[in-house]
Amino acid sequence: MNKITILIHCKDRPNIIASVTNFIAVNHGNIVYIDQHVDRVQDIFFIRLESEFSSEHFSLEAFKSLFKKTLVETYGMKWRIYSSLRKPKMALFVSKFDHCLYDILGRYNSGELHVEIPFIISNHMDLKPIADSFNIPFHHIPVTKDTKEEAEQKQLELLNSFKIDFIVLARYMQIVSNNLISKYPNKIINIHHSFLPAFVGAKPYHSAYKRGVKIIGATSHYVTEELDAGPIIEQDVAHISHTQTIEDLIAKGRDLEKIVLANAIKLHIKRKVLVYKNKTVIFY
Amino acid sequence: MNKITILIHCKDRPNIIASVTNFIAVNHGNIVYIDQHVDRVQDIFFIRLESEFSSEHFSLEAFKSLFKKTLVETYGMKWRIYSSLRKPKMALFVSKFDHCLYDILGRYNSGELHVEIPFIISNHMDLKPIADSFNIPFHHIPVTKDTKEEAEQKQLELLNSFKIDFIVLARYMQIVSNNLISKYPNKIINIHHSFLPAFVGAKPYHSAYKRGVKIIGATSHYVTEELDAGPIIEQDVAHISHTQTIEDLIAKGRDLEKIVLANAIKLHIKRKVLVYKNKTVIFY
Amino acid sequence: MNKITILIHCKDRPNIIASVTNFIAVNHGNIVYIDQHVDRVQDIFFIRLESEFSSEHFSLEAFKSLFKKTLVETYGMKWRIYSSLRKPKMALFVSKFDHCLYDILGRYNSGELHVEIPFIISNHMDLKPIADSFNIPFHHIPVTKDTKEEAEQKQLELLNSFKIDFIVLARYMQIVSNNLISKYPNKIINIHHSFLPAFVGAKPYHSAYKRGVKIIGATSHYVTEELDAGPIIEQDVAHISHTQTIEDLIAKGRDLEKIVLANAIKLHIKRKVLVYKNKTVIFY
Amino acid sequence: MNKITILIHCKDRPNIIASVTNFIAVNHGNIVYIDQHVDRVQDIFFIRLESEFSSEHFSLEAFKSLFKKTLVETYGMKWRIYSSLRKPKMALFVSKFDHCLYDILGRYNSGELHVEIPFIISNHMDLKPIADSFNIPFHHIPVTKDTKEEAEQKQLELLNSFKIDFIVLARYMQIVSNNLISKYPNKIINIHHSFLPAFVGAKPYHSAYKRGVKIIGATSHYVTEELDAGPIIEQDVAHISHTQTIEDLIAKGRDLEKIVLANAIKLHIKRKVLVYKNKTVIFY
Repeated sequence: MNKITILIHCKDRPNIIASVTNFIAVNHGNIVYIDQHVDRVQDIFFIRLESEFSSEHFSLEAFKSLFKKTLVETYGMKWRIYSSLRKPKMALFVSKFDHCLYDILGRYNSGELHVEIPFIISNHMDLKPIADSFNIPFHHIPVTKDTKEEAEQKQLELLNSFKIDFIVLARYMQIVSNNLISKYPNKIINIHHSFLPAFVGAKPYHSAYKRGVKIIGATSHYVTEELDAGPIIEQDVAHISHTQTIEDLIAKGRDLEKIVLANAIKLHIKRKVLVYKNKTVIFY
Repeated sequence: MNKITILIHCKDRPNIIASVTNFIAVNHGNIVYIDQHVDRVQDIFFIRLESEFSSEHFSLEAFKSLFKKTLVETYGMKWRIYSSLRKPKMALFVSKFDHCLYDILGRYNSGELHVEIPFIISNHMDLKPIADSFNIPFHHIPVTKDTKEEAEQKQLELLNSFKIDFIVLARYMQIVSNNLISKYPNKIINIHHSFLPAFVGAKPYHSAYKRGVKIIGATSHYVTEELDAGPIIEQDVAHISHTQTIEDLIAKGRDLEKIVLANAIKLHIKRKVLVYKNKTVIFY
Repeated sequence: MNKITILIHCKDRPNIIASVTNFIAVNHGNIVYIDQHVDRVQDIFFIRLESEFSSEHFSLEAFKSLFKKTLVETYGMKWRIYSSLRKPKMALFVSKFDHCLYDILGRYNSGELHVEIPFIISNHMDLKPIADSFNIPFHHIPVTKDTKEEAEQKQLELLNSFKIDFIVLARYMQIVSNNLISKYPNKIINIHHSFLPAFVGAKPYHSAYKRGVKIIGATSHYVTEELDAGPIIEQDVAHISHTQTIEDLIAKGRDLEKIVLANAIKLHIKRKVLVYKNKTVIFY
Repeated sequence: MNKITILIHCKDRPNIIASVTNFIAVNHGNIVYIDQHVDRVQDIFFIRLESEFSSEHFSLEAFKSLFKKTLVETYGMKWRIYSSLRKPKMALFVSKFDHCLYDILGRYNSGELHVEIPFIISNHMDLKPIADSFNIPFHHIPVTKDTKEEAEQKQLELLNSFKIDFIVLARYMQIVSNNLISKYPNKIINIHHSFLPAFVGAKPYHSAYKRGVKIIGATSHYVTEELDAGPIIEQDVAHISHTQTIEDLIAKGRDLEKIVLANAIKLHIKRKVLVYKNKTVIFY
């Protein structure tokens, strides 16, 4: 059995669902999952389908080509088709904080993440022992004001040579350049340690403490050119009180960060996220 | 425009989605919403569709008849079709607690609930002033051990004469008879003041206090013959601590109860709940 | 029995707790509740005590005077002492939204709020029927650009003549003047329909929808001169998804708003809130 | 500076707080934290104090002895006094699941837990590599029906020889004997993968799936003779839906389990938990 996932969005028009489901049926596929959404403000139609095709008669390339000719052109669709046979490749960027790294690698090790992790990149050596203990190659690429461009060149070479599909910034404490962002549009997942859009930028726990909020949060989003303003994938929060110091907020926040980031990664791997106009549709 | 909602479940088989969507397209309907689910343990397929038909050419009866002949028999479907033109009729049963009643009538008054409330039934007179202030007829039907059967007869007469679609037990402190339940299968919504299946039966807040739980809950479910064991529609919880007395739990619980019950009512009104084997599928 | 509640804060120094508890014991009081907090960043000490005194020998005025001489001057305390014999008086300000008003009056009616509500003020007539049905005097004081000052004069006269202790803005859609704020410092409770400091100002649900957040919130805070920037008393949030329209957010938000505002009111009534430097200490 | 933490409970009587705080002041201690609770149903008084004493004049043994003579006997107190100088020693029991182990050791490594972990005991070899990577001794003590008693003997020897203070069952899939429980009363922390008291015993996620609940939970509690019925320290929950399979519940549950267990461990280490009549008081 071949299992493929199709993500589509386009201007809303009558009969798109019937056209797509009919196309799959005619091509001997069986739809095992369908989820759809219409943004009535923007008038955009979104759909995600999982279909099964018996292996003997199925060619992914032929299907894609026919799909394009039959549907994409008619409806002006933006589309992506993924085969479940290919595991996505994920690069991890870290600095000195270890909680997200431990969490991701623990999940990876226990088979929770259907993904390959060819390497970890860090601007510091601190987390190399963790990478080693999980047997994942660790590349130390220091970043200073002067070497930023050169460092990014090294990063890009690694990303290219391993055909990386998407990047996870697991508390990577550097601002990623527009050049890198443009090469991985909606493919760089960041975890920000606040309930965005509150407390954009550095030291959000300090700002939250200062403002006296009763709830802190964490936000996972795709990285765009504007800092901490990309499409939000997942958010969660925790109640706090006046008894908690900044250190307590940071500790409690670590738990939020790792769960929120892991959930965002899982949604991305399962192709459940569709981005448009700086917002996400998260299919169930 | 005619807007209809279709709910279907049947044994899972290939191509059901394509068949249904195609049927609607062929009959000049446009699908504006589709949500589907397959229970792979039980091998059951579920789907909910909202479709629009231009009014001139559309007859609900003709559509139903054709739907039955074309699809229902082929796939052995269990199905329901609702027109948005008809507002469902809801009966409220209450006793002495007023918080759920205030909450429901407040929402009803502000237009949040697309429903008619022809009357309120109560075994006590206490809440009549609230019914009066909202201009809703209030029927006092006392229930004692001896008059239980007679009281229920009166209830049934009212329910029948107003063609009531579903009943909401808004903290109605009587056990409903199997006779009434059998006449309104999956159409009697109850609010139980615990996180079911913990603390079934009477005085759940007392039991929660005694056990020393750190979280209390409320559960809205359809009433079945077995007490507090019907299909769960909605649940929510709140954190508590040792500082809270039973009275505090009861007060906090009131807030849970009214929100959870209101959410369950809204899901039921929007035809978003499908019941099978004592569980619910809640469409988004 | 006389039950009094004491709230104190001052610069932190050794032995304050022992001094205060000793003072109460020596004056034949029994401490039934104590909660304390030290803000180590600002070096401020906070304490809340509930004590019982047998009625025969107890004079509140004499106790206050002795307390002031013995402790307040020694430690430079800011302090308040409340007797449980006196119910606080709360004024309600509303405009056109009814959900918070229904919720507060429902709680008031069922005895949940230990408070008096001498009147409701509104700049519109819409909610008069609700006030009438709960038998609470309703004062219609329209506010336009030109009559703003005059309207406030009328409000102040009402507030003064009834010796109002604190004001609740239950979705009152007018900005309160600095003059009124200065007369009720940390005594005007507002409900803002966002998770502050995100989405300050008008139409926060529209902003939340536009930003694509996955969680919405509500914040109850004391009103200060800077808009939506006063000390936060209570916050809560709810998860949302891309399927929800702005109208859905507004409806879901109503449930958050009424629960959060009610909780803030209850904390204020129980004298559990202490404000300093634009933050709150919420005693348990 | 010597920092000590005192936990007391006894029958409620007037003036206990003043007596205790006065005692500390007279003995040249400064109270930096006080939290108290009265269970008015059982009429029991609880208090937790943190006090600082300058090192030169302070002897813990002398203080304890004087405390006992002056207060304990007068009030019939049950009491415990801890010095912050001594790190508690924690033993970890695991089987095959690694998520709680990774989580605890990650926190331990980053300094989040003020504790020593002298060793890990397991009835399987599977998790030895994780123990090795964190440089913590791993003792493989297999347990079969026939060797259960002998295995426990080995466990007890290890526990004794390292003067272990408390035990954490981090998804240890064996029922601990009454003998071991009696030696560590309220000192064995377990994580149960349901919202107790719902779904006691084996396979709670399967039971939750079958019942169709909309929320799953995890509960950390002290182990007592009755299975899953000990005093609850911490609980948390997560919303689920019909779309989730048992495997999804288990995966989501892992995140709950590790956070809830870690929070319970932290509360225990900070001496914030007081147990009485099978319930806990959790000081803030």
